[in-house]
Amino acid sequence: MKAAVYYGPNKLEIDDVPEPEPRPGTVKLRVGYNGICGTDLHEYYAGPIFVPTEPHPLTGAQLPLTMGHEFSGTITAVGDGVTGWSEGDRVAVEPVYRCGTCAPCRAGNYNVCAQIGFHGLMSDGGMAEFSIVPTEMLHRLPDSVGLELGALVEPMSVAYHAATLGDVSAGDTAMVFGAGPIGIGLWFALRGKGLEDVFVVEPSPTRRAAIEALGATTLDPGSADVPAFIAEHTRGAGADAVFDAAGVTPAVATALACVGSRKPMVSVAIYEKPLETPLLNLVMNESRIQGSLCYTGADFEAVIALMAEGAYDTTGWVTRIPLDDVIDEGFEALHAGTKMKVLVDPNEGK
Amino acid sequence: MKAAVYYGPNKLEIDDVPEPEPRPGTVKLRVGYNGICGTDLHEYYAGPIFVPTEPHPLTGAQLPLTMGHEFSGTITAVGDGVTGWSEGDRVAVEPVYRCGTCAPCRAGNYNVCAQIGFHGLMSDGGMAEFSIVPTEMLHRLPDSVGLELGALVEPMSVAYHAATLGDVSAGDTAMVFGAGPIGIGLWFALRGKGLEDVFVVEPSPTRRAAIEALGATTLDPGSADVPAFIAEHTRGAGADAVFDAAGVTPAVATALACVGSRKPMVSVAIYEKPLETPLLNLVMNESRIQGSLCYTGADFEAVIALMAEGAYDTTGWVTRIPLDDVIDEGFEALHAGTKMKVLVDPNEGK
Repeated sequence: MKAAVYYGPNKLEIDDVPEPEPRPGTVKLRVGYNGICGTDLHEYYAGPIFVPTEPHPLTGAQLPLTMGHEFSGTITAVGDGVTGWSEGDRVAVEPVYRCGTCAPCRAGNYNVCAQIGFHGLMSDGGMAEFSIVPTEMLHRLPDSVGLELGALVEPMSVAYHAATLGDVSAGDTAMVFGAGPIGIGLWFALRGKGLEDVFVVEPSPTRRAAIEALGATTLDPGSADVPAFIAEHTRGAGADAVFDAAGVTPAVATALACVGSRKPMVSVAIYEKPLETPLLNLVMNESRIQGSLCYTGADFEAVIALMAEGAYDTTGWVTRIPLDDVIDEGFEALHAGTKMKVLVDPNEGK
Repeated sequence: MKAAVYYGPNKLEIDDVPEPEPRPGTVKLRVGYNGICGTDLHEYYAGPIFVPTEPHPLTGAQLPLTMGHEFSGTITAVGDGVTGWSEGDRVAVEPVYRCGTCAPCRAGNYNVCAQIGFHGLMSDGGMAEFSIVPTEMLHRLPDSVGLELGALVEPMSVAYHAATLGDVSAGDTAMVFGAGPIGIGLWFALRGKGLEDVFVVEPSPTRRAAIEALGATTLDPGSADVPAFIAEHTRGAGADAVFDAAGVTPAVATALACVGSRKPMVSVAIYEKPLETPLLNLVMNESRIQGSLCYTGADFEAVIALMAEGAYDTTGWVTRIPLDDVIDEGFEALHAGTKMKVLVDPNEGK
């Protein structure tokens, strides 16, 4: 079968590899779509970062391996001892390996397991015609949720998890900084939680236009005095939660100038270096910065339920490409900023 | 009577001012001791910052005024309509004016009232023989708590409030960065909350020696690998809470390298400028930075109760001086770092 195999920086090849068969406790998935993530870009251009160069303690896998950790698929075979799953079942994959024994795992917060691993970074993932997936990773897709949306459950769960850490509810005012895929996911998640008062702050006219087309209200930090606007809008109280999905100094500074007293800025960005951060803002109104990492199964289930209600829309920000085009139309296009979210179809034309 | 009157930068004079008499709803206090705070130093060397140059909306007062917001005293007269307080009662003063109507005030978090004012910054304070204080600001001192400790209730409440935001309990591991008066107060507060496992990180040998003499365990960040030590001590889990009472980049970076997953770094420092902050640490283990500002009445009561149990000790870090020496032996000595905490006695020799 065809697979996008990662060998190291700038080396991702479409190889012909043996079609895998399920082991006990796993299923064989015919991959529907597999999204390309920012993490994949970091691996491609500057890796290996997460991809292990010696056998991973939880998976035993190492470089080279098939990339792809955001995917959906249809079960074509089940391994020994598997119950509750059958050929033809359609699923989204929650690609997390965890130790299961550390304090966070025992508390259900396995997203911060110290040994966390990812299917598609620490084992052969979804940029292939088929992938072998442990049943613990499977979330059933209802009939109303297609495989395209199914591949988006993973990144949308990253955003949903962050939205939950924002501790907001209907009637609150929230702000999202950055309208990339996670910012879009935050907007959907916050709307899904019943918020009507959500402002998306984004300097790029293209990205503003994309999220506005989905129904969002945006602010251009290049022309608006964003803190003054929010202060007036909230009668001086400030936003009930602000979300940083941009990861740059101006976004953090503006977000912390907007957040209300005893309210959170949730950080759901990969900060490449320490940023100059006005910590005095946190002290003066007892606000906080709360980090957010990945998701747990509850986030997957919540996103799938919202998708079944029609709360998510891929119009204008999601592009589908065949596996053969993964470099030029996938990684390079994302790196150049000409596409926002790319879903790879490894079985196109079959 | 004698009073230390603030006129502006580098101008604090011991003036002879009219002895005030209580208005309705207030009491007249013969000041026991009044502590000099970092805020006072900022006013003296770089102000006016908090001291209003036009009538304050809550107090009507403005420059020049008598400084001092950390004080204890004995009631010598009560104003019209005052009940429950009598001549001879000994009190600590919680020097906060608040609007009472904003959302934080209504929620009991008046320490983050947008209009907050302080007795001794926005009205004539405790660096005088007498001060007129609204009864809402009074906290009764039990017989076992002297006026010297009484003057320390305010800064110790700043630290106690921060300790509470650390969300720790007996059995937890905590770290305090910076062993100035607030760091010392954090150590007392954490011990008072039942923690035995508290590490104080402080580069100054003098300050380490002072807090060690009180019973604390210290780490010298100049010689110890602090994150490695804490990782080993907690078997990889990290500290249950870390407290930044230093306000400088190395402390923040080290603190965020020590804090456990989903645990807080509480900021109780006045950051003079934005610091380079490794926000990625927050994301990777879902930890958080929580700002802490001042206190409310509950903190005052908790500190006074602990003082009554003998939990606080002034040995080695608190110096008493007469009012006439407030510049040389007070502000200048604190500014030069030759003293840690100075209590002014405006009635010495009387």
